Amino acid sequence: MNIELICSGSELLTGKLNTHAGFIGEKLNDLGIGLSLVTTVSDRKAEFSQVLSDAVKRSSVIIITGGLGPTFDDITVETVSEILNIKTHKDETVANAIVQYFEKRGINCPASNNERQAQILDGAKVLENRFGTAPGQMLHFQYVVDENKKVRKTIFLLPGPPREMCPMFEENVLPFMRSYQVKMKKTLVLHICGMAESLVDEKIKPTINYLANNDDVEFAILAHNFLIDVKVSVSGENELTIDDTLKNINQEFINVLGDNIYGYGADTLEGVIQKMLVENKKTVSVAESCTGGLLAAKLTNTAGSSACFKQSVVTYSNESKMQLLGVKPETLEQFGAVSAETATEMLNGILNLSKADYAVSITGIAGPDGGTKEKPVGLVYIGISFNENHEVHKFKFLGTRADIRQRSVNVALDSLRRMILKTRTKKVKKDS
Amino acid sequence: MNIELICSGSELLTGKLNTHAGFIGEKLNDLGIGLSLVTTVSDRKAEFSQVLSDAVKRSSVIIITGGLGPTFDDITVETVSEILNIKTHKDETVANAIVQYFEKRGINCPASNNERQAQILDGAKVLENRFGTAPGQMLHFQYVVDENKKVRKTIFLLPGPPREMCPMFEENVLPFMRSYQVKMKKTLVLHICGMAESLVDEKIKPTINYLANNDDVEFAILAHNFLIDVKVSVSGENELTIDDTLKNINQEFINVLGDNIYGYGADTLEGVIQKMLVENKKTVSVAESCTGGLLAAKLTNTAGSSACFKQSVVTYSNESKMQLLGVKPETLEQFGAVSAETATEMLNGILNLSKADYAVSITGIAGPDGGTKEKPVGLVYIGISFNENHEVHKFKFLGTRADIRQRSVNVALDSLRRMILKTRTKKVKKDS
Repeated sequence: MNIELICSGSELLTGKLNTHAGFIGEKLNDLGIGLSLVTTVSDRKAEFSQVLSDAVKRSSVIIITGGLGPTFDDITVETVSEILNIKTHKDETVANAIVQYFEKRGINCPASNNERQAQILDGAKVLENRFGTAPGQMLHFQYVVDENKKVRKTIFLLPGPPREMCPMFEENVLPFMRSYQVKMKKTLVLHICGMAESLVDEKIKPTINYLANNDDVEFAILAHNFLIDVKVSVSGENELTIDDTLKNINQEFINVLGDNIYGYGADTLEGVIQKMLVENKKTVSVAESCTGGLLAAKLTNTAGSSACFKQSVVTYSNESKMQLLGVKPETLEQFGAVSAETATEMLNGILNLSKADYAVSITGIAGPDGGTKEKPVGLVYIGISFNENHEVHKFKFLGTRADIRQRSVNVALDSLRRMILKTRTKKVKKDS
Repeated sequence: MNIELICSGSELLTGKLNTHAGFIGEKLNDLGIGLSLVTTVSDRKAEFSQVLSDAVKRSSVIIITGGLGPTFDDITVETVSEILNIKTHKDETVANAIVQYFEKRGINCPASNNERQAQILDGAKVLENRFGTAPGQMLHFQYVVDENKKVRKTIFLLPGPPREMCPMFEENVLPFMRSYQVKMKKTLVLHICGMAESLVDEKIKPTINYLANNDDVEFAILAHNFLIDVKVSVSGENELTIDDTLKNINQEFINVLGDNIYGYGADTLEGVIQKMLVENKKTVSVAESCTGGLLAAKLTNTAGSSACFKQSVVTYSNESKMQLLGVKPETLEQFGAVSAETATEMLNGILNLSKADYAVSITGIAGPDGGTKEKPVGLVYIGISFNENHEVHKFKFLGTRADIRQRSVNVALDSLRRMILKTRTKKVKKDS
């Protein structure tokens, strides 16, 4: 069965973000039912008609959003009527409901306009709009394939504003779609850091290839600023089999990716760090230069971060590095502010200042200016410490100023995570 | 001329937000050129092929995003090759560039995978990817309408990640599209802070109503976390007339909005602040609690911020507020960490520590936990100072933890901007 979505509205072609496709796609995907195509089209009659008649040919279920309002450019009902050759009628119940909607708000209902919204396709079920005036419609119709064959198809007309469309979709379209749900589907998302996307791909390829002929298993890889997501979806009729398959795939991935997997599903890198720190009753402080507070902002992103985050300083100038963190003037002179030596002294400085268990320091050149041949834009030193364990790593990031700052933060978070993994009190695994 | 966009990627059908259509739609609209259709399709060969062959029939320019990466599900080049019946070849320059991209990062390029990205359509122009490995491609091709008629069409292949796609679009697709521009169109975006969206709407409505029948002038208002954008687009054949209209509308808006307008176009609140500070040779330091570094991160967002940003501290705990900023224990005990008194002492503390000209302090409850009846989630105190001028403002923000943090930062930036406006040495306006 093909399900397709048509989003009607010229504003969606001139810059307005289309959130319908994401919302509907996710809801259907959770049912294990795929959305096969999304088309965004203007509210000009000729173009909308063409898209709709193509859709009617190829799909069993067509969901249309937008174009149900009271104004001249709301052409969904009349276009569907023409393409399906199904008449419309004025629904008095709907017309009265619209008048009442206005009366409740102390406004006179503009008759001509709102009569438009009471036009219902013959045979359609009216879908109540709890957050606006334009009702939705659901219609089953016969599609003539050839003279010997007719098939039953379904079309949904939903309003454009997300606050009206989303509840109407959940209350009317989802229950209908559930009756078509043939298979159950579950999805596992693994979060990975510390490996290039292509290396992750190479490592998991044997598993993917092994399952290549199994249509019930789907894989996807997504990467952003050194954080990589691998998504595994398994469909089937038996929940135990699905769980078992997911568990086996996950184990294969753990075998090849190991500690590079930092979490699953809703986990974030900073959330995972916070959880480990709180569990181990440890604290962290950070000293930043080129990232200017972004690392601290991440570490305080998750509710409850006050339990493990002590303090941070942004020492942008040499003066503040010396004054706040006790970085020695001769270190700055001899090695420069962007050097392993300065990163180490920043680390010692923030540890002395805050008495935290873990500390992170970052110093680098975010650019676009300030680079030299010896110290180019993107050169970043990241220091991590726990007790006697001091590590300083050198990186060379590419990209814009924003990229370099974001990548520095992600790599610093991952370095901190690895330091915590290495130094925390070993716990007996409960689930093995 | 029809221009259509095909966004390829199964993730876009299963819940991931598609931002490409909005970005490309807006950029083309700014040229006065419409996007006629957007199709989102999975990376399964059969479906992608069908969509592409329909597009090739009906449109003169086809822009494809996604599917250029190194992995198994990246099928754009091979599908375009099949549908247009145009061969591909391995481009050695591209292949070398990819190897170098990896070498720069000290990683060995996995040969099999990255060879895939060096496959270029015969006759295509390679579009440099400054932020990733997969190059884009632009190809002009002959489309056979019937035996007597051929037309020249153009296809663009762009990478999927927005940070790679957006600059490549601006550098390659936009200049090409400009040659098709019939009417000239110019857009002015005003940035406003410190007023509710509905009040901005009320203030500018007379101008909008006055121009309601002029189809060459369009208005839009967008608001996000207390920052409001008003967009004015004017089309026409005569550049001088367009400039004149924009200038008049801008003057009307300045009359009613005044200092609430903080900038235009690419201006950011932090950029405007940085510009004023640098011009006046002044510096700023900040002390943050609930915003955890976000304000400092904003103030160091723009290149050159080291000229005016001295330092910042994130004092999340009471202990660090006392130790680093000298907040008195009795203040914390009597008034609490979230109070005007603590905000004032944080302000004094960061001024003493950093000797900056301007200082900002923020203390509040970002939630979701930690609120009480007297001090609910969203209560935030923001302190601003310059010399003897000390101000502390109390706010009650609604929304999620992320909203409250972001709104606090935006309001703190705007308060700092207004303090600088009030206290800076008056300059003779050059442009009046």
